[in-house]
Amino acid sequence: MERPGTVTIIGVGLIGGSIGLALRARGLAGKVIGLGRTLESLEEAIRLGAIDEGTTDPNRSVAGADVAVVCTPVSRIAIDAIGAASAGPKGLLVTDAGSTKREIVERVEADPRARLGFVGAHPIAGSERKGVAHARADLFEGRACVLTPSGRTPMDRLNRARAFWTALGCRLHEMGPAAHDDALAMTSHLPHAVAAALAAAVPPDLLPLAAGAYRDGTRVAASDAELWAGIFLANRMPVIDALGEFQDQVNALKMALIQGDHEAIRAWWESARARRLKLH
Amino acid sequence: MERPGTVTIIGVGLIGGSIGLALRARGLAGKVIGLGRTLESLEEAIRLGAIDEGTTDPNRSVAGADVAVVCTPVSRIAIDAIGAASAGPKGLLVTDAGSTKREIVERVEADPRARLGFVGAHPIAGSERKGVAHARADLFEGRACVLTPSGRTPMDRLNRARAFWTALGCRLHEMGPAAHDDALAMTSHLPHAVAAALAAAVPPDLLPLAAGAYRDGTRVAASDAELWAGIFLANRMPVIDALGEFQDQVNALKMALIQGDHEAIRAWWESARARRLKLH
Repeated sequence: MERPGTVTIIGVGLIGGSIGLALRARGLAGKVIGLGRTLESLEEAIRLGAIDEGTTDPNRSVAGADVAVVCTPVSRIAIDAIGAASAGPKGLLVTDAGSTKREIVERVEADPRARLGFVGAHPIAGSERKGVAHARADLFEGRACVLTPSGRTPMDRLNRARAFWTALGCRLHEMGPAAHDDALAMTSHLPHAVAAALAAAVPPDLLPLAAGAYRDGTRVAASDAELWAGIFLANRMPVIDALGEFQDQVNALKMALIQGDHEAIRAWWESARARRLKLH
Repeated sequence: MERPGTVTIIGVGLIGGSIGLALRARGLAGKVIGLGRTLESLEEAIRLGAIDEGTTDPNRSVAGADVAVVCTPVSRIAIDAIGAASAGPKGLLVTDAGSTKREIVERVEADPRARLGFVGAHPIAGSERKGVAHARADLFEGRACVLTPSGRTPMDRLNRARAFWTALGCRLHEMGPAAHDDALAMTSHLPHAVAAALAAAVPPDLLPLAAGAYRDGTRVAASDAELWAGIFLANRMPVIDALGEFQDQVNALKMALIQGDHEAIRAWWESARARRLKLH
């Protein structure tokens, strides 16, 4: 960032808390202010070193801020971003950390003041755990972050958003909000849906015989239900399409098994394996 | 085991090599002999400390053995177990490490001599990697191992198999071969199939945006294609049934998404989450 300024974190949970820890560990902000719902959670965030100060008052939280990062659940982000833009100073950069972008950007850009200060962002980092107690200063190091400027995003804000997320350790990608949502439906929302379906399919009495493939494949199914219901609904059609692509793959294996076709099963696995080996 | 004797490992790859390393690290065998297809791979196994001696001659490999552990691919195990029983001494215990059991036990028990010395086993441990170079002495520590005695398994051999696998660090379970295959279809074969289907569904150009959920959920898709084609075919009907249970879960989510039913999606996720939290 151009200079150490004041950063307001709206929603100090796992993601917001990790941003605060990273800002403070790297000396990237003069002051980090947390906006939360309860004083107890803000005191915990201060004790853990994620923020310098906390408040439950939205207007006060952004009064002297240079940057506001909205880290609330996806269904809340647009309204919190619009609130920050309206209460904050003229030069405020508002960015966010939501897992979906199309709806959020549309709603923020429908507000004449908010659209002048907003750059949508999605750092692809997280955990099945929630809450500031699980925040980590290195959560974003080397992780992808997608910025989703639209045709209306002011260039100075885009440049400041690039600098902000890069300073946290992210590798930046840029694309439109719709392209982001289509891509993430495949690379994040589908893997989460598959993990939960797998977790639900295996009867509990068999869990003592679970292989590592079950443990790893279902890890993220321990994530928060409300959070994921919100993400799935905010990206409904792309997720439905991604589930369809996935179901085609499952059906191809099932058909090869029904036919007892060794060569078809081997070829099916081999093409999945080749794909997996492309992941660095 | 009652005394440190000679153990022959038939097939010195990831699993066989790990058994050898564990036997030698724990001082559980007077001598560990490896049977392999090439002298090169046996020399590597000796260099890595997985076996004391190697041979490519099946008859010589078991001539003085107390225990033979068959660690070849599932399609080879029955024939290798029968070969070991026929070439080895009268007191030989033959056990195996195959991921499926029904077919193997049926075929071994069809042989009058082999059935007197055989106890089917499946240590639920492994890796997406193959070969003795990836073997680890601690691969079995604390991992489940299922023994699958049938009504015809001699009690002295069952007791010796229990002692053998326990000494390697396994937590023992016992059930019939068919019950094993039904259970493992859900707890291991299904998670492997799902990982491969997920790997195959995501286009390679999107992989830079892959979340941790994709990385973890597809890890085992890097496993060997021939190995997994063999396991799926050896457990065809239970795997087809497991895929059906899983497809029902995926469809339930897809229907809730099509209907835009927030409460149904949340409840679906919550029940998957509760299941996952039962895993220790």
